[in-house]
Amino acid sequence: MHPAARGGPQPGDALGRAFLDAVAGRPGPIVVERDDGFVAVDHIDYLGQLAERDEWAVSRAAGRVLDVGAGAGRGALALQERGQDVTALDVSPGAVEACRQRGVRSTYLGTIGQAASDGLAGGFDSALLLGNNLGLLGSRDAAPGFLAGLAALLRPGGIIVGTASGPDQSGLPVNLAYQERNLGAGRLPGTERVRVRYQQLASDWFDWLIPSPAELADLARSAGWEIAELRPGPGSLYAVVLTRPGG
Amino acid sequence: MHPAARGGPQPGDALGRAFLDAVAGRPGPIVVERDDGFVAVDHIDYLGQLAERDEWAVSRAAGRVLDVGAGAGRGALALQERGQDVTALDVSPGAVEACRQRGVRSTYLGTIGQAASDGLAGGFDSALLLGNNLGLLGSRDAAPGFLAGLAALLRPGGIIVGTASGPDQSGLPVNLAYQERNLGAGRLPGTERVRVRYQQLASDWFDWLIPSPAELADLARSAGWEIAELRPGPGSLYAVVLTRPGG
Repeated sequence: MHPAARGGPQPGDALGRAFLDAVAGRPGPIVVERDDGFVAVDHIDYLGQLAERDEWAVSRAAGRVLDVGAGAGRGALALQERGQDVTALDVSPGAVEACRQRGVRSTYLGTIGQAASDGLAGGFDSALLLGNNLGLLGSRDAAPGFLAGLAALLRPGGIIVGTASGPDQSGLPVNLAYQERNLGAGRLPGTERVRVRYQQLASDWFDWLIPSPAELADLARSAGWEIAELRPGPGSLYAVVLTRPGG
Repeated sequence: MHPAARGGPQPGDALGRAFLDAVAGRPGPIVVERDDGFVAVDHIDYLGQLAERDEWAVSRAAGRVLDVGAGAGRGALALQERGQDVTALDVSPGAVEACRQRGVRSTYLGTIGQAASDGLAGGFDSALLLGNNLGLLGSRDAAPGFLAGLAALLRPGGIIVGTASGPDQSGLPVNLAYQERNLGAGRLPGTERVRVRYQQLASDWFDWLIPSPAELADLARSAGWEIAELRPGPGSLYAVVLTRPGG
């Protein structure tokens, strides 16, 4: 019929804007668009209660904690209430601002690599990745670097605690086809290139990993980590504690 | 970061596929994407209860009814239950199939113009446009043709009953800017070019009108119709009965 005429989405901090709007009492839906055009609606309650597997992960986060991809600060606030020292790290300016507005006392805007350069190296007992943020491992190629980056921020003996979503179990042909294309290209099946859409904003495209526990264990092992605890469910979701046998 | 690599959405019957999945017990979210990149999630319950204003509109639909943009058939089924003769028209093959699967006895796949050519001209007492389907008027330029098309399907004295959404009242700057651009281009402020996204499918882009009651009255009048009844609310939503003073 007609072509689109008005420019399409604007590049920007889609997730951060969604957090700030929600904090201001104007929550709106967050859409995740995959690069095959598949759209899904993000149902995470970023301001509300943590999911059970995230509560479990918080309970395992010991000592001084780096909350990686802190979002609107649910995990950091839970740790503060427990009296733990926690720094909320996010690459999204809106997320960091939302954390501040909600009372998170220590925040860091940037990547884990930037945090290490900025003097945070070796300072934490636990790296916490809630909200399925083990997806930040990104891909088989990117995961070792990401895990090494976390390791650089931890004290000897420090642990990684996080939650993940395993590969899609919807049975939808479109998702099966996506996984098959990944395998054909030598990628892990649950490697997804996505961007976040919120109102008029679209984030950059980024790789997001939804690994099975076995795939996660394999990625961890090759970077010197191992799964010390695994809490399965619900569905393909799970939580883990990663430790370094030599660390 | 990375570019999208895997082709983007597939052109197709997004809404129809969503209806069929819902009928099969696998409902999924429907996203409406505006051509400035704004994304919204469609919260219409296509299989469930009619909204109050749609119930009101159904109660006003007299005699033999053409359900225009019948979707998954809620309105047609309600009329059948009341013992009225109703034909469910939709341009979406999936919608028409969903209507059939749900028990709608008379369906028509095509536009109102095609229906008139196919022998349905002059056959109906009421044209029913539920689910804010007065948005099908499209734009100031398209509305007269659409209303004339409906008129051709009605008997003398036939009426149009429908529901509409008036211009956005969210106060979001992005929506205000969109309305202002419309006005600057000589369009009604509530003229939206949108497409429907469902899973991997994207519909064609089409114009969708969200007119105020006054704007609707003006469009109707210039095509020989007038608002005989107006039921306002909730919010900017409303329902109307249109009649032809000379008809």
